[in-house]
Formats: sequence, structure tokens, C-alpha cells
Amino acid sequence: MTNMHYTLTFNTAAVKYQLHSSFGALDSLIDPANSIIITDTDVAGLYPHLFTGHRTVIIPAGERNKTLETVQYITEQLLQHQAHRKTFLVGIGGGTVTDITGFVASIYMRGLPFGFVPTTLLGMVDAAIGGKNGVNMGLHKNLLGTITQPQFILYFPSFLETLPIEEWSNGFAEVIKYACIFDKELFEELSDNNINYYQQNREALTTLISRCVDWKNKTVLEDEKESDKRKLLNFGHTAGHALETQYHIPHGHAVALGMIIACMVSEQVEGLDISVRKKLVALLQQYKLPTMISFDIEQVMNLLKMDKKRTTDTIDYIVLEGIGKAIIKNIQFDTIEKALVSFKDAGNY
Amino acid sequence: MTNMHYTLTFNTAAVKYQLHSSFGALDSLIDPANSIIITDTDVAGLYPHLFTGHRTVIIPAGERNKTLETVQYITEQLLQHQAHRKTFLVGIGGGTVTDITGFVASIYMRGLPFGFVPTTLLGMVDAAIGGKNGVNMGLHKNLLGTITQPQFILYFPSFLETLPIEEWSNGFAEVIKYACIFDKELFEELSDNNINYYQQNREALTTLISRCVDWKNKTVLEDEKESDKRKLLNFGHTAGHALETQYHIPHGHAVALGMIIACMVSEQVEGLDISVRKKLVALLQQYKLPTMISFDIEQVMNLLKMDKKRTTDTIDYIVLEGIGKAIIKNIQFDTIEKALVSFKDAGNY
Repeated sequence: MTNMHYTLTFNTAAVKYQLHSSFGALDSLIDPANSIIITDTDVAGLYPHLFTGHRTVIIPAGERNKTLETVQYITEQLLQHQAHRKTFLVGIGGGTVTDITGFVASIYMRGLPFGFVPTTLLGMVDAAIGGKNGVNMGLHKNLLGTITQPQFILYFPSFLETLPIEEWSNGFAEVIKYACIFDKELFEELSDNNINYYQQNREALTTLISRCVDWKNKTVLEDEKESDKRKLLNFGHTAGHALETQYHIPHGHAVALGMIIACMVSEQVEGLDISVRKKLVALLQQYKLPTMISFDIEQVMNLLKMDKKRTTDTIDYIVLEGIGKAIIKNIQFDTIEKALVSFKDAGNY
Repeated sequence: MTNMHYTLTFNTAAVKYQLHSSFGALDSLIDPANSIIITDTDVAGLYPHLFTGHRTVIIPAGERNKTLETVQYITEQLLQHQAHRKTFLVGIGGGTVTDITGFVASIYMRGLPFGFVPTTLLGMVDAAIGGKNGVNMGLHKNLLGTITQPQFILYFPSFLETLPIEEWSNGFAEVIKYACIFDKELFEELSDNNINYYQQNREALTTLISRCVDWKNKTVLEDEKESDKRKLLNFGHTAGHALETQYHIPHGHAVALGMIIACMVSEQVEGLDISVRKKLVALLQQYKLPTMISFDIEQVMNLLKMDKKRTTDTIDYIVLEGIGKAIIKNIQFDTIEKALVSFKDAGNY
């Protein structure tokens, strides 16, 4: 089994990464008497035995519940459990659970220690890593949040045995993202395989997860506060977030579509060869991700103009020079609008 | 005029402190086109001219509005103003305004730059300084918040010309607090004077403010995250916060009462001479602060058991060895309860 057992020291804190085959490993890292688990109805339903002997706060599953109201609900529950500054919070779930757990932990009594156990592929390769947390407000994704590192992230690949197929696709959208930004070899490996292969081959899967974790951490170690290089990780996420919140589509679907749009932007501003986009579209389809959507250009543009990466008239957009080579480019909103028009017209591949 | 113009470098950020006689100084520090002022109905009503030419968000005045709902309201207003990651927020007001501005700034889009202009004596000597921010939830004061330093704190003593007399008293409660913890000479200076003296003597007032700012900053520079020495600043604030939220009394009144209770705790655990408490009571009365209150011991104890400084069975309490010499002592809740009984019995001095 892939060896994943190390500590990374970020500017703000040290984070332990560990991969385990048995859930029992959690109890070696926390004191149940002094910790509270935060999870959602999906995970609690599938793994009820995990939570016996632990104080647990269960939130309703789904990104639509990643709100200030849920922060308030968790806070009230923490008060009921008499949580204090030294109480340890453990978020066990997908990106919604870890994002909201990290946010509550970073503001409850001005900060509690916390750790994550991601249960989805998307959480394992992306959402749980890097310290970004937050909640949505209306159509604005992660509008309120902080960057605060957890003390640990524990990987139990066996959680993936119960993961629905559409959640595998969502996770692979982020895996394909790393390949596009950093790793041409990974792009080729993915092209040679499919979801079923990774489901059947635990060694290949954990190696894949570990490779994505490394790409993300390498980037965050260099630029924790996203003043520069970390922005690369937003490849596909700018138009993607706008489509996600406006049309209530899963995050991985939105990133897939956003990456195609980013290729179209790259074709305009970097002269990216159209063959790159065609290869990406084929790969996304191979991993059961959508490559088109019906949408309204004006609605999406209005949301883009409120993106976190925006300044007054321009936006930092992540574009490709080729597969495995992304750069940050400050571009005009017009350029994105043109790409959206082409994307809408492209219709089908 | 007292010279107050320097930059202090905390672990997390550098903070400029400046004292000015004219409000115009604000415009030399911010770009109105790229900043948004947050203030309350009291300040906006008294100084409407200050806000012309500035985008302004006005929240209802009063500690009872320091809530997540107001955070949501400010966030919606910031979205309307298309605030982005480089938008600068300026909190102009008392502790409620600066606490909530600092909190919103530390979480909106995961953090905006911000600065403060405290308009009350309490804000100038305490609330605006040190980076602690937050909102209340139910009876729990500052339950949700962060420690994030502003980029500047500007002092315009002329704001105090419109400060109601009860707000002078509230501010002096914190001034007396610094005297008790750190500064016997200040205790004596205060004993020799009264509110009227400082209202009439601008030089003495700014020297006093500057002295309090120095005490607070000296402490926060040593221990920004309140793992140790910063706890001293909570003298009078433990029982004080419980009385404040349970009985809806002003913060300064609560601190005054809390300091008397802390003396009674100190008499039990440090053998503090009763003459100290008598001097403190006399000084509080001289600055028109209350020295008794009708309260329910059980209600107050229940709230104390949820204080942020608590761990499981004990609490870090700030006790006096003498005037100007405070220490942190981990004590049992029983000890506080005994002090509350004595305080209730004391009735009158």
C-alpha cells in the first residue's frame, strides 16, 4: 500500500498526513472525551458504528447547507456539548463537512484545534487539503471563510467503497485538473484508464490520491495565502463556480465545464492549440463528466464579476500553455465573454 | 499634544497608530474609491459630513446588534458595493463597530485589509486595540470571532466632545482596569482626578489614552494569541461578561463589578488585603461606575462555566496581589461562587 505518513509544516501550522486501512486509527489521534465529530446525514447513515462513543454533531448533507445558518446550528450544538478552547473538532465527510468544520473551528471562541477525515475522492484529493474553509452566501461560493490549517488529515480509502459513481466522477474532475495544470504524465495515465480501473485497483488509486495530495501541498507550501502560485489551483474554477452556483450542478461537473471554457480563453490569449481542448473533452467524457451545459451568458458574467479573484476591471484567470503547464493571466472580462459565446456555440463535440 | 505616531509589528501584521486633530487625516490613509466605511446609526447621525464621498454601511447602534445577523447584513451590503479582496474596510465607531468590522474583514472572501477609527473612550483605550474581534451569540459574548490585526488605528480625540457622560464612565472602567493590573501610579493619578478633569484637559486625556494603548500593546506584543500574559487583560471580565450578557448592562459597568468580584476572589486565594477592594470601590464611584448589582448566583455561575477561558473543571482567573500587580491563577468554580455570595451579601459599601 502507498506509504503516506508525514508532517508538512506550513507558515501557519504543521499538518499530519496519514493513510490507514482501519478506522480505528482515528482513536489513536484524538481523545474522545475531549473531541467532537462533525459529520453529515449521509456519512452518519452509512457508518453509524464509527460514531459510537463519540460526541457527534450531524448536519444535513449537501453543498446547499454550507451556509451561515449551519454555522449557527453547529455553534449551538457545540455550546450544548460545552465545547471550550481546547476541544478538538474532527470533520468527517466530503468537502461541505470539512469546509464548514474548518470555518467553525477557526472562529468558535476565536479558534479550536481540528482535523479532517475526508470520505469522498474529491475531499481526499482537494477539498480537505490546504486550509481554505468557508460557507456560501446566496450565489456566492465560499464568500465567508478563512485559511486555517487542520492538525491532521487522515485517509481511509475504504470509505470510497460506498461512494456513488457520480461522486467518483466529481473527484476525477479535480484529478484531471492537477494533470492539466502540472502533470502531463498523469494526463496520459488517466487517458489510459477509467473509473472502473481505479475502483478495482486499490494500489493505483492510493498512488493517484497521494500524487494529487503532493501537487496541492507543493503549491500551498509555496503560497499558503494565495497571493500568487496557489491561484493556479483555480484552473476551471472561475467560470466553474459561476455555473455551479447559478445552475446548482455538482462541483466536479462545474470544474469540468470550467476547464473547457478556460481552454477556450487560453486559445484566445495564449494561442493554445485546439487539440488540447479536444483531448480534455475526451478525457472528461471518459470519466463520465459533462462537457456541455445550457446556460445564460449574462447571468454567468454577472457572477464572474463578483469572483474573489477579481479586482476592479480585470480578473486573474488560469490559462494553459499546454497540458501540464498552467499560468496566471490578468485578463479583461470581454475575453471570458467571448469564450462563453464560443462554448455555448460549440454545443457538441 | 501627545505625540502618537508609530508602527507596531505584531507576529501576524504591522499596525500603524496615529493621533490626529483633524478628521481629514483619514483621507491620507485610504483611497475613497477603494474603501468602504462601516459605522453605526449613532456616529452617522452625529457626524454625517464625515461620510460624504465615501461608500458607507451603517449598522444599528448597540452591543445587542453584534450578531451573525449583522455580519450577514454587512456582507450583503459589501456585495452590493462589489467589494473584492483588495477593498479596504474602515470601522468608525465604538467597540461594537470595530469588533464586527474586524470580524467581517477577517472572513469576507477569506480576508480584506481593514483599519479602525475608534470614536469612544472605551474603543480608544481597549476595544479597537489588539486584533480580537467577534460577535455575540445569545448570552455568549464574542463567541464567534478571530484575532486579526487592523492595518491602522487612528485616534481623533475630538470625537469625545460628543461622547455621553455614561460612555466616559464605561471607558474609565477599562482605564481603571489597566491601573489595577499594571500601573499603581496610574491608579493614584486617577484617584486624584475625575471625569470632568480629563474632559477639560485635552493634554491629560491624550496622555492617559496613550498610556493605556501602551499597556495593551505591550501585552499583546508579547502574547498575541492569548496563550499566557494577554489573559491578564481579562481582569474583571470573567464574572463581568456573565453579568453583562445576563443583565444587559453596559460593558464598563460589567467590568467595574467584575473587578470587585475579582478582588474578592483574590482575597480568598492570594490573601489580598481588603483595603485594596475598598480603594477600588471608591475609585469606581468617583468615575460614576456601579459597585453593586442585584443578580442571581446560579444564572451567573452557569454562564461562567461556558467562559472562553475555561477548560473542563477549572478556569484561568485574573487575581490581584496588590494594586498594579495581577497574576493568572487556575481556580475552581467553587472559589468564584464563594466570591459571588460575598459580593451579593456586601450589598453596600
